Amino acid sequence: MPLPNRWITALMTRYNGSSLLIDCGEGTQVALKKSGWSFKPVDIICITHFHADHIAGLPGFLLTMGNAERTEDVLIVGPKGLEKVVSSLRIIAPELPFKINFRELSQDFETIEACGYVIDAFRVQHKVTCYGYNVRIGRKGKFDAEAARSLRIPLMYWNRLQNGETVTDGDNIFTPDMVMGPPRKGIKVTYCTDSRPVKVIADNAAGADLFICEGMYGEEGKEAKAREYGHMTMYEAAELGKKAQPKEMWLTHYSPSLVRPDEYLGRVREVFDRVKIPRDGWFKTIDFTD
Amino acid sequence: MPLPNRWITALMTRYNGSSLLIDCGEGTQVALKKSGWSFKPVDIICITHFHADHIAGLPGFLLTMGNAERTEDVLIVGPKGLEKVVSSLRIIAPELPFKINFRELSQDFETIEACGYVIDAFRVQHKVTCYGYNVRIGRKGKFDAEAARSLRIPLMYWNRLQNGETVTDGDNIFTPDMVMGPPRKGIKVTYCTDSRPVKVIADNAAGADLFICEGMYGEEGKEAKAREYGHMTMYEAAELGKKAQPKEMWLTHYSPSLVRPDEYLGRVREVFDRVKIPRDGWFKTIDFTD
Repeated sequence: MPLPNRWITALMTRYNGSSLLIDCGEGTQVALKKSGWSFKPVDIICITHFHADHIAGLPGFLLTMGNAERTEDVLIVGPKGLEKVVSSLRIIAPELPFKINFRELSQDFETIEACGYVIDAFRVQHKVTCYGYNVRIGRKGKFDAEAARSLRIPLMYWNRLQNGETVTDGDNIFTPDMVMGPPRKGIKVTYCTDSRPVKVIADNAAGADLFICEGMYGEEGKEAKAREYGHMTMYEAAELGKKAQPKEMWLTHYSPSLVRPDEYLGRVREVFDRVKIPRDGWFKTIDFTD
Repeated sequence: MPLPNRWITALMTRYNGSSLLIDCGEGTQVALKKSGWSFKPVDIICITHFHADHIAGLPGFLLTMGNAERTEDVLIVGPKGLEKVVSSLRIIAPELPFKINFRELSQDFETIEACGYVIDAFRVQHKVTCYGYNVRIGRKGKFDAEAARSLRIPLMYWNRLQNGETVTDGDNIFTPDMVMGPPRKGIKVTYCTDSRPVKVIADNAAGADLFICEGMYGEEGKEAKAREYGHMTMYEAAELGKKAQPKEMWLTHYSPSLVRPDEYLGRVREVFDRVKIPRDGWFKTIDFTD
């Protein structure tokens, strides 16, 4: 539940002028406002599942996007039943200046490409149908100037080839693969809440630049409660991190009973030492490597 | 819209162990949490109208009441269509450990008695059907001990008569009116947002102990905007106060553009000098007079 000074768990990514939001609980719009980021470029909203703390803020968020003069379509991704749930919530937000497109997930694993993002949705294990998401940014290979020169490709075509175009020059046809190296390592952020610590999460988070995962409980003796409600402890989350070996791991979705989550950092790092225990408003800039 | 450090307008009254909430926008549950008051004794929720900023927080609020182990029925009061709107929002809060009773308003003026409160709902003038509310606490007359003595009513019956019971003692029948003076002045709090400054508001707020009224704009030149959107300026609100003569008047529902609403206090007080410009979390204890 939302608390004074602790907003409900959500993630926003920003890339190339396009923002993507995962989950939208009560007050997520206030958290975003506080960050100083804009509502207008939110092109994609991914919902993990239909519990109130992950979607109750959606009607207000959409209205505020409307107030920000958004007119372009918005894509909402989520489990089967998404359109029905969103339409039902929109009884108090029936008029929006933009169209909503829905992508309802029904498979255990689905990949969606939109607005420069590659999004993997992978089904996790909660009390209701729930998905984790990879948000990936692909990166083209390096342009091989030497190859272009040796193929005598005129300089004026280089840029078009770099952008993936095929160029015809008289009898010559130049294709991008002639001058572009293999795709380079892109960026991957993995986000998962709420779930038991199932293997699929570690598989999807493998090698991520940032792995954000619920760590609902830190106190001793909460394992049974975590199991009962389909959640995981910080230590269970850290075990996933240990398997996945992301560059960095953030825990989130702390129980309201967890007043000082960073108290448990030491013990959690005994399991996986790249774990951090973020507070509200944390952000991180991830650059392409090399 | 909810802002960092400014919650959406709502009012909670507490009397005799029973809490009453008017309006429940996104984050109202956080504002309540911050106040330190409890969710469990919320017996009545009055909704002014179905715009998101007055009702979007309801599903989360009801869930939190459920988490607080509320099991007694809750009465929700609001304009016609209330049950449909609440049911639609409850798609993400379908299971609650208490029953909800609905009272849908259809008249221009209706009075509801519940949990020691007398609630007047009066229709105001907004872009959609909207009600203002008086929350009144009645007060019985004084017990006239002298009359009781002269009528030779045994002391053992005094308390029952005071509580409104009729007592039979052999051939004697004692009724409360024999010993109780006329009802004394009770307490009245009037709450009105969102509306144009129509006469019915001043009529209902007449002589209130506290009159809470929207004062959406304070800046020059906002009259046309207020008219267009069915709101009122601080000065229009103050004119209502001048007519109604409450003991104290609070403005609320400030526009997000109004960063420092108290800047306008001086000018507003030129219209009605008992106006205050509250900030988040203001509360006031109102005692019976004499």
